[in-house]
Amino acid sequence: MEPDVNIKLTLSYDGSGFHGFQKQKGGERTVQGELERALGALAGEAGETVGASRTDAGVHALGQCVSFRYAGPVPPDRVAAALNTLLPRDVTAAVSEAAPDDFHARFSTVAKTYCYVCVESPHVVPVFRGLALNLPRRLDRERVRDALGAFIGTHDFSAFANVSDTPRDPVKTIHAFELVERPPFLVFRVTGSGFLYRMVRNMAGAAIEAGAGRCDAERIRAALADRGRAPGIPTLPPQALYLVRVHYTENDVSQPVPFL
Amino acid sequence: MEPDVNIKLTLSYDGSGFHGFQKQKGGERTVQGELERALGALAGEAGETVGASRTDAGVHALGQCVSFRYAGPVPPDRVAAALNTLLPRDVTAAVSEAAPDDFHARFSTVAKTYCYVCVESPHVVPVFRGLALNLPRRLDRERVRDALGAFIGTHDFSAFANVSDTPRDPVKTIHAFELVERPPFLVFRVTGSGFLYRMVRNMAGAAIEAGAGRCDAERIRAALADRGRAPGIPTLPPQALYLVRVHYTENDVSQPVPFL
Repeated sequence: MEPDVNIKLTLSYDGSGFHGFQKQKGGERTVQGELERALGALAGEAGETVGASRTDAGVHALGQCVSFRYAGPVPPDRVAAALNTLLPRDVTAAVSEAAPDDFHARFSTVAKTYCYVCVESPHVVPVFRGLALNLPRRLDRERVRDALGAFIGTHDFSAFANVSDTPRDPVKTIHAFELVERPPFLVFRVTGSGFLYRMVRNMAGAAIEAGAGRCDAERIRAALADRGRAPGIPTLPPQALYLVRVHYTENDVSQPVPFL
Repeated sequence: MEPDVNIKLTLSYDGSGFHGFQKQKGGERTVQGELERALGALAGEAGETVGASRTDAGVHALGQCVSFRYAGPVPPDRVAAALNTLLPRDVTAAVSEAAPDDFHARFSTVAKTYCYVCVESPHVVPVFRGLALNLPRRLDRERVRDALGAFIGTHDFSAFANVSDTPRDPVKTIHAFELVERPPFLVFRVTGSGFLYRMVRNMAGAAIEAGAGRCDAERIRAALADRGRAPGIPTLPPQALYLVRVHYTENDVSQPVPFL
């Protein structure tokens, strides 16, 4: 038996075919389920994995992070390549490495970056249907940027939690929230210390409403201060949301993120 | 019976589920087949349509143009919206308008713009699998741009035709061939008077080989001059190719193309 090693693994996946990242009691197809199946085949025994983010059904990842103990014969930096021979087509193991024993994909997280991707087009663009939200009218950039600015800093984000949730730890810090123009895509990129369930989709929804003239920075500030679920803010659909990077050092938070 | 009108229709489609644009004798699913079915339902009788480009199986379109005679009750500029109620999810009618009687989607074409979309990533990115070509190593930008420059102008493009084809009209003019950086995408955007079958995929293949150090502008110039199929130039896969715009006026050719 090899001594076991703590592994940090970065995953990329197409969320379309999954009921989210996290294993489900009903046996629905999940990313974690597929990963643990592949790891079991590789290591000869099933192990527990921890994901940095419980991405929802339909949400994509370009840089999900997972940690697990591994005692098989493949060297830590080759585990990703070995897993790719066992994983289905919609999940790729990008990078694997040995991590310190106290590294934990979720608890060691310093920040995460998500992107919400839109296409401004008066008609639906079929090829981007599962990847980006169609915006039939052009957003007012200045109004969007004003709205995004209202989220920056440390706030109680209860107003942007899921409608029926009362989060235990609603205070989060948003480090950056940018509108990135990548024609034909318009990308909302946010980096924060943590996010409540559906918080990114609710914040992006408020920003889009602002760009369409139906919300503004003032209302966002008031909603944050009131800490109640903000009225008239849509929860955007999951298939345009991407977990882009999980940051484990303060220094990494300030580095440019390659995607979007 | 309404008097019949010549219609110019712009289409957007996801090529993944089609055996190309053009109707096939074997009854395979094609964009034209779906369009003519919808038009038949709208106009009460089946009509012939002409497409500007016979996009191959798997090739996407953001701005395919089609012309046809139409004699139904819906005004020309509302035909697109009416068709969208009848078309499948992977085809969208973007814009319809009345066109002069001598307008013909194929013969009136002045130029076309295609994009070939890549993602530079050491691992496959599953969410972009059907949309972009994965390039495991970073391309040398200067070598790519040199290679693209070799295609500009009027040449006999026999060397970049399909391997088994002897094209009747191999002389084409490439107006522009640019490398556009849209992280995470790297886009080869080409505008030309016309393209031989698989020519865009062969030219982009040569440019990528150049960026990887295995081809260069000199070899492209020699291949054009020799007019024989250039050896060692791959035909890239279809699912990363996009028909972006069909140009019908010289003025339009010089306008910026919104996508990519």
